[in-house]
Amino acid sequence: MQPQIEIFSQGEEVLTGQTVDTNAAWLSQKLVDMGFVVKRHTTVGDNLADLKSLLKEVSLRADCCICTGGLGPTQDDLTAQAVTEAFERPLQLDAIALQQIEEYFSRRKRVMVDANRKQAFFPQGSERIDNEWGTAPGFSVQQNRCWFVFVPGVPYEMKSMFNETIAAILLQRFSLQPDKLVTLRSVGIGESDLQEKLNTIHLPESVQLSFRAGADEVQTKLLFPATTEPQQVKILVNRLVDSIGDYVFAVDNLDERQGGLVDVIDQLMQQGQYRLAVQETASQGLIAAKCIAKPWLVASAFSQSLAHVADKWGVHINEGDYLSTAESCAHKIQQQEATHLVLVQLYRGSTQQFQQKTQTIVLYNLLLTPDGIRSSEFTVAGPVKRKQNQAAILALDLLRRYLQNR
Amino acid sequence: MQPQIEIFSQGEEVLTGQTVDTNAAWLSQKLVDMGFVVKRHTTVGDNLADLKSLLKEVSLRADCCICTGGLGPTQDDLTAQAVTEAFERPLQLDAIALQQIEEYFSRRKRVMVDANRKQAFFPQGSERIDNEWGTAPGFSVQQNRCWFVFVPGVPYEMKSMFNETIAAILLQRFSLQPDKLVTLRSVGIGESDLQEKLNTIHLPESVQLSFRAGADEVQTKLLFPATTEPQQVKILVNRLVDSIGDYVFAVDNLDERQGGLVDVIDQLMQQGQYRLAVQETASQGLIAAKCIAKPWLVASAFSQSLAHVADKWGVHINEGDYLSTAESCAHKIQQQEATHLVLVQLYRGSTQQFQQKTQTIVLYNLLLTPDGIRSSEFTVAGPVKRKQNQAAILALDLLRRYLQNR
Repeated sequence: MQPQIEIFSQGEEVLTGQTVDTNAAWLSQKLVDMGFVVKRHTTVGDNLADLKSLLKEVSLRADCCICTGGLGPTQDDLTAQAVTEAFERPLQLDAIALQQIEEYFSRRKRVMVDANRKQAFFPQGSERIDNEWGTAPGFSVQQNRCWFVFVPGVPYEMKSMFNETIAAILLQRFSLQPDKLVTLRSVGIGESDLQEKLNTIHLPESVQLSFRAGADEVQTKLLFPATTEPQQVKILVNRLVDSIGDYVFAVDNLDERQGGLVDVIDQLMQQGQYRLAVQETASQGLIAAKCIAKPWLVASAFSQSLAHVADKWGVHINEGDYLSTAESCAHKIQQQEATHLVLVQLYRGSTQQFQQKTQTIVLYNLLLTPDGIRSSEFTVAGPVKRKQNQAAILALDLLRRYLQNR
Repeated sequence: MQPQIEIFSQGEEVLTGQTVDTNAAWLSQKLVDMGFVVKRHTTVGDNLADLKSLLKEVSLRADCCICTGGLGPTQDDLTAQAVTEAFERPLQLDAIALQQIEEYFSRRKRVMVDANRKQAFFPQGSERIDNEWGTAPGFSVQQNRCWFVFVPGVPYEMKSMFNETIAAILLQRFSLQPDKLVTLRSVGIGESDLQEKLNTIHLPESVQLSFRAGADEVQTKLLFPATTEPQQVKILVNRLVDSIGDYVFAVDNLDERQGGLVDVIDQLMQQGQYRLAVQETASQGLIAAKCIAKPWLVASAFSQSLAHVADKWGVHINEGDYLSTAESCAHKIQQQEATHLVLVQLYRGSTQQFQQKTQTIVLYNLLLTPDGIRSSEFTVAGPVKRKQNQAAILALDLLRRYLQNR
């Protein structure tokens, strides 16, 4: 039975959205990797009543809780006070903590104001956690079911304290067996189609399957119990990859073929020592932008209209046959840029169809390679920025498919 | 008495830290600006029991709750099921929702699989919230003290639904007395420099001043009590704008000059009926990408190296004098593209200096206009993606300054 942990962030600036709570995500990844089950994140503001009720809830519900923020010297830092009142543990001076805080200031030739004394008082029965990176020491205390760890909200201090001290204590206090997460990353197929393709495959009860759709890719996540044999993992994952097909461009945490779409392309382009030139339309610069600082992208051009593209490369527009027009452009570009690979994107649709979120365009991507022509055709819908991003991703995926399957 | 609101995010990927929950911060800002008191953020995973207990808690404690995620078609999307079980509201088919989902697929020439049918079922007594941006409609339901709103977790779907529909419903359902928020939007100046410039200005106690630095701009936020006279607001804001100077490209919520940098440029380009051609280097397509679907951007080109740019436009590289080289290119581009405005970007720095986050490059932007040449020079630091974005923003800002000051 894996121990259940919660993360609780204190701070008005997080609650009001002035600050995005990156601490919670950072801690969660660490804790999941260690073998905890993260059950909840909660954020409350600098409000004594809210803090007390949350502390009481969590003490009955979780095995462990990491709390960030509210340890500062100012009047709106209420964490220790809230613990004192919620759990009837009077504040007591920790002489060593006080000494550390005084040293922190003397080292920096700064005068310690009275407000900082408050940071050396901890609720009765708690243990100090040293903070070499700031003025606020942390502390831990066991209450009811839950072992609470309180650390400052400053990311650098929190992360340093977790890595240097808290992680080791957690490994001592809890018997942990980390699960194994494998992520299948795919492009060009939706969540529901993935689900459909995988329905036929029987997964053991113990394996958790989940999906995650982003703007650039859809991820299929498999969580295996720590006890699963690597060989079993490999067999099952490969079975899933086979039934999804080559929509899958990478599998994180299984073999070397991992990373984002551009990472995978980068690896293969460098291996093949290829160079690429691109003509963009619907993606309007986004193909190039996504390949930032990749040495193999020699040049890219965007043109407002098909007529402008044809005029620029001096090719005839074959009415209705976008792919043959694209091919003519590709050959001209190859002559000028002398690259092994040329990617040309055209689309069918009016300005209005491109801009209206309720309307669609048809996207034509053509890749000129030493092994001949590759091309794809997709109907793309949604707001203009989604159409633009899809246009870039689907063009890059045509390149990825060529490089992976050649 | 301001209504109390909570935000609740569902998703294993947020809980395990694979995704940072930016939705919660985005929603919190909007809701605070509208006049709500945000009391809690909570995140739970794709777990029916956890979802049910959280829904019950919140229904007794908050006046309103916005819930993101868990509306997808797959088996790990459990929100509607959790509401059904927690509040004893059997699922019922919404014929219109089903029709919308079917249309979503037919528009994209894709087959709708059975899994998507599930997205058209809502708990008894709830009202559908249309989603024109994805397959998952949202829904709202009143339970005990709390009015719940359920929306997808995909940020652009969530944000679009909130802006286009939900915000209006909230204003109807709750008596809100929003403070008046005015936002000064600036480019090319940092938070601390802004602070410095504003130190001299006396602000009334009742006015809250805060800063927010993003990738594309820095915002100076002024929060006035609801009772403040518009005239007072205008006088104070204009005083701030004057002391910051023309780093400010827009002021949201004061007069017509508002929106993002590209919105402001778009307005002025359309008024002047200008057309633009761009040569990109460090920004690598991102200038064009940020101007998606703007009719005045005729063409844009990216080239890997300065030599490639010079070769392409047949100009001589004036060693060390990047601006004169840029000017030569600009004239050649104007001849070819016949646009009123030509923007050329070059930079000084090795590949390594461009890619290393500890190193810097020097960015040269040159704008050829009917009124002559405008140019800017900046030293840019940070990770390569930051350098790329800064390169795009600073080039666009050169254009903005010309258009606003001409």
